[in-house]
Amino acid sequence: MIDHDRFLSTAARNYEESAIRRTGALAARIPDLISFAPGYPAEEMFPWEALDTIASELFTARQGHTLQYGATRGYRPLIEQLVTTLAARGIETTPDEIIVTTGSQQGLDLAGRALIDPGDVVLVELPTYSGAIAAFRNLQASLVGVAQDEEGLSIETLDATVAELAATGRRPRFIYVTPNFQNPTGLLMSAGRRQALLEAAARHGLLILEDDPYGSLYFEDTTTVDDTRAIKSADCDGRVIYLGSISKTLAPGFRVAWLVAPPAIAQRVELAKQATDLCTGVFDQRVVHAALSRGIVDALAPRLRAHYQAKRTVMEDALCASLGARVRWTQPRGGFFLWAEFEPHVDDRQLFEQAIANRVSFVIGSAFYVNGEGHRCARLSFSAPSVERIREGVSRLAAAVRALGEG
Amino acid sequence: MIDHDRFLSTAARNYEESAIRRTGALAARIPDLISFAPGYPAEEMFPWEALDTIASELFTARQGHTLQYGATRGYRPLIEQLVTTLAARGIETTPDEIIVTTGSQQGLDLAGRALIDPGDVVLVELPTYSGAIAAFRNLQASLVGVAQDEEGLSIETLDATVAELAATGRRPRFIYVTPNFQNPTGLLMSAGRRQALLEAAARHGLLILEDDPYGSLYFEDTTTVDDTRAIKSADCDGRVIYLGSISKTLAPGFRVAWLVAPPAIAQRVELAKQATDLCTGVFDQRVVHAALSRGIVDALAPRLRAHYQAKRTVMEDALCASLGARVRWTQPRGGFFLWAEFEPHVDDRQLFEQAIANRVSFVIGSAFYVNGEGHRCARLSFSAPSVERIREGVSRLAAAVRALGEG
Repeated sequence: MIDHDRFLSTAARNYEESAIRRTGALAARIPDLISFAPGYPAEEMFPWEALDTIASELFTARQGHTLQYGATRGYRPLIEQLVTTLAARGIETTPDEIIVTTGSQQGLDLAGRALIDPGDVVLVELPTYSGAIAAFRNLQASLVGVAQDEEGLSIETLDATVAELAATGRRPRFIYVTPNFQNPTGLLMSAGRRQALLEAAARHGLLILEDDPYGSLYFEDTTTVDDTRAIKSADCDGRVIYLGSISKTLAPGFRVAWLVAPPAIAQRVELAKQATDLCTGVFDQRVVHAALSRGIVDALAPRLRAHYQAKRTVMEDALCASLGARVRWTQPRGGFFLWAEFEPHVDDRQLFEQAIANRVSFVIGSAFYVNGEGHRCARLSFSAPSVERIREGVSRLAAAVRALGEG
Repeated sequence: MIDHDRFLSTAARNYEESAIRRTGALAARIPDLISFAPGYPAEEMFPWEALDTIASELFTARQGHTLQYGATRGYRPLIEQLVTTLAARGIETTPDEIIVTTGSQQGLDLAGRALIDPGDVVLVELPTYSGAIAAFRNLQASLVGVAQDEEGLSIETLDATVAELAATGRRPRFIYVTPNFQNPTGLLMSAGRRQALLEAAARHGLLILEDDPYGSLYFEDTTTVDDTRAIKSADCDGRVIYLGSISKTLAPGFRVAWLVAPPAIAQRVELAKQATDLCTGVFDQRVVHAALSRGIVDALAPRLRAHYQAKRTVMEDALCASLGARVRWTQPRGGFFLWAEFEPHVDDRQLFEQAIANRVSFVIGSAFYVNGEGHRCARLSFSAPSVERIREGVSRLAAAVRALGEG
């Protein structure tokens, strides 16, 4: 066997494995593991009957193009439907600004490819989605974090960070944010903060990459649809690139998401996609088109909101009961994640080992930080496990925390 | 609106639109256009009934993981099935060498990302698949072409090219080839040439990227399965990265293909894929797994061979009858393409304009050359149109050729 390492590109030599997907692989090998690790939607909420009907109709109609190669931009009726879907979220757009992507992860990669040269600075929230970290690092970006408070990204810190970078001759091209129920913190960026971020981006000549997979999954006990209004909806000068998806609101198995960008950038993203996977599967796009246009996604949303809100409450109650003051978090007002902060002596890697021994898993906090922080934290997903499994999992996790001692 | 061009990466500024997909977009706008442009499989051969049965079973079973996120490597039963499928083609492999990709185009992109640094030389055939040109150029590779004769890639020219590059201090990392019914020439690389290429690659310290979407679509009037034996099947030291796909042998709508590489490279490709689209759709993979494991793909292959052989013959007869000595080609022994070479005065772009005026399209020859050649040539796909449309399309094309005059 020849030595293959010498053939690897510089980028490939430095690829890092996703902590989320590594723990997923681990989970598959441990019997009876309760996993709070992946951000998987609840399978019991997939609208099987409606999807079965749509799929049957597509197979019965036997239109060749359903199983043929499709346009790189996406299936045209889906793009037109998305104009309507996005308008309902306050985002005015046109078909020439939309690209259908093979999941939002592809949107991150393609936007990155259109915007990042090796060595370029990209700004991200502290902490931020680990899949975005991987996408941008694989393109050899230099990631610089900006702290968040309970209202979201700190504009003061953003200003200071840009000024510090400028002092060393570096200017970031864009900032990546997830204003709605952020992955991993579950934070909702306040309306004021969103407006301030848009103004700050204009001041600093930055684009904003807004990732919004969880927007419609707000919890009605504390939050309204108005609280989730996308930054893109207030974008008057083409400063925001917006990513949406049906992975959390219908099913991730179809690998259909969308990127909305000013035409000059959308056109480059389309060319990147051409050479990346030619097109997103047309069958998947037709299923998603039908699910959107027949109101199936909209009808499901209130049920998903109630479902995930209930699971969030179960997890909060269980954490309170079993760990009391030994764990803190900001109440998630939507989405899939609870961001747990433990006492100062807790190390996320040690806790993870102990947790795995107790047959419960999560994603270590440091996986979401680009600056080495986060070791007191854990991302706990309450979306996929049943209520009973959440209670049992928290009990196992609490035992793992106690096993680490009093600090 | 802000100026977006200044935000674009160096790579994105230089993205080029695929000639194939551009002509596809054009075709959609011209009524009654007969297209010999895209390498689309014949829709009338999609095994609708079998696929409908598989899909119904999957929706009826309602197993959550069918519509959930899946492993980045691929759906495990599909990977295990591929070990068997590949063994039947003489390729001995193991699951740790296989990555399921979202179409073979993703395989080209991911292999490129694992192997190419900006400025690196990649060797390709003259001419070669334009989608590979785009994938490697988007990664800022410098593409150097190696001539082919009727037996395929010229080893003498390869040796000379590597020597010339070495004289300027440059060493290519890999060579990209399509030995079976090459896109665009339809050429079948001879067995002797395959062996010589493997030896030359060892001599020069090169990897081989072998793209094999058409392997099982040989035409039985001239060719046997033994003639299509993959270079990978003779690879003893992990020198060949192999790409296979069901896009041409089942349906492209499922976006399922596979990459086979030595574990050290497969592991890097997996990490690239993690950050690129997380996973290929599990529903699609389960459909393909069922189609392979139930023998549907194998049972379809002889019918596809006969179908495409018949269409090839119709196109050849029509070209002979209408253009005689004004066009030359090497008889395709499989696949989707006939590579037409016209008289010296013909320019592919002029011919294309005239052809479009006559409501017939093709892909201009120069789109497949990395060195500016190919202007006497056209790639004619006989795979998708009906026999009647092939005859009518060739008649329109012949009129376009005649309209360019005698030279």
